[in-house]
Amino acid sequence: MAEPPAIVSAAVLLIGNEILSGRTKDANLNYLARQLTALGIRLREARVVVDETAAIVAAVNECRARYDYVFTTGGIGPTHDDITAAAVAEAFGRPLIRNPEAVRILQDFYRETGRELNEARLHMAETPDGATLIDNPLSRAPGFRLENVFVMAGIPVVMRAMFESVAPSLACGDKVQARTIAAFVAEGDIAKRLGALQERYPALEIGSYPFMREGRFGTSLVLRGTDAALIERAAQELVAEIRALGVEPEAPEAPEADERAGD
Amino acid sequence: MAEPPAIVSAAVLLIGNEILSGRTKDANLNYLARQLTALGIRLREARVVVDETAAIVAAVNECRARYDYVFTTGGIGPTHDDITAAAVAEAFGRPLIRNPEAVRILQDFYRETGRELNEARLHMAETPDGATLIDNPLSRAPGFRLENVFVMAGIPVVMRAMFESVAPSLACGDKVQARTIAAFVAEGDIAKRLGALQERYPALEIGSYPFMREGRFGTSLVLRGTDAALIERAAQELVAEIRALGVEPEAPEAPEADERAGD
Repeated sequence: MAEPPAIVSAAVLLIGNEILSGRTKDANLNYLARQLTALGIRLREARVVVDETAAIVAAVNECRARYDYVFTTGGIGPTHDDITAAAVAEAFGRPLIRNPEAVRILQDFYRETGRELNEARLHMAETPDGATLIDNPLSRAPGFRLENVFVMAGIPVVMRAMFESVAPSLACGDKVQARTIAAFVAEGDIAKRLGALQERYPALEIGSYPFMREGRFGTSLVLRGTDAALIERAAQELVAEIRALGVEPEAPEAPEADERAGD
Repeated sequence: MAEPPAIVSAAVLLIGNEILSGRTKDANLNYLARQLTALGIRLREARVVVDETAAIVAAVNECRARYDYVFTTGGIGPTHDDITAAAVAEAFGRPLIRNPEAVRILQDFYRETGRELNEARLHMAETPDGATLIDNPLSRAPGFRLENVFVMAGIPVVMRAMFESVAPSLACGDKVQARTIAAFVAEGDIAKRLGALQERYPALEIGSYPFMREGRFGTSLVLRGTDAALIERAAQELVAEIRALGVEPEAPEAPEADERAGD
């Protein structure tokens, strides 16, 4: 018997009223989902949280107990509505300090750019006591890590740079591989065969996603798991099931449709 | 004294592994956030939940106790991975039934289109006992409402049609209005004045969102609240604060930048 896959789990917390009011479209979740999946870390939950201390504290504490890693985005700028660092300190029961290393980074940056390092900007140097900084090569104000919680910027380009700087330090599990087989069959016509395939392959996760392309309905069938040989065997059976419906699967690497459509 | 605003709250649950694996970009949250805000319903939380019964049950039960409304998207198709209806039934401790009205809708639809209403498609007629159906004018398989929980499709066009059909039945609170004032000032330069403005207007929620436009850094300042006169007074003060920095605010209705940038 193969060993059970090594599983490392994560949650993402998107912090910001502007996403919940609809003013801003989140641009961070999909990036983090893809990066974590590629690293072999399973994103098990994501939440969008209001800019309120109690809500952030509750979400951080629930998720850091439940998952191996928690990544937050948003709320670490210089203005009064940037309360993530203070809320994470409260979640851990630690004092919020003015981090000397972060102060030095900001001093260097604002000296170089000839701008004023005022009190508001020094707010960006505050971290919970005991945190280690996350490098921000773009606008310099750092994120931080405390135990299994990573606090990053909300601005997508800055968040991505921060994530890239911490990615090499993450413990990773077995990578989940995916194989997509698309065909112009209705979900309702393939559903029974697909359910039987799922029962034959309990170690795989088989997903079904309807789409509409060039005016025709079809379904993308996705086989996911950590065992490439098992995926390949299941994929061959799935192709046979599709052909049994009188349909030829599309090229396996066909690009995914943006607009999906129902059964 | 004005009466406190009437507050109606909501949560959104996006159900689907494909969003957490990064395969699919969510296309429903921003639509629901904007619609709810326009109706005077405050979206207080959103979660992306895996396709697992225990996770869906927990999220539904936490959110339906905490908020006035819960809207779910995804997991109501004909395949084995569509488990939302069964999970919601379990969350409410009610049996999952084959809903006679839903069966009739599907029978009519598949008779009209000359396709087979097989067992898999009849799976889409299952609801918790006591649920009322949500009309699906596009692909007909209905959503449902049970108490304060609305279960809708994950496919964006279908979800939107379902939401439109339930929107008139929702109790709404006082509408939150927003006024955006953008200026080419750095967040760190306006932060102190902005924090003081927030203290003078505790009934408003003042947000600060950096952007980059035409290669220049700026900040969008958003005043939100239920009292239009109060927003207008605060906006005039904010314009004066920006001018005190030697900067002229941009036209008030300037379109929002897609790409944001830091302080």
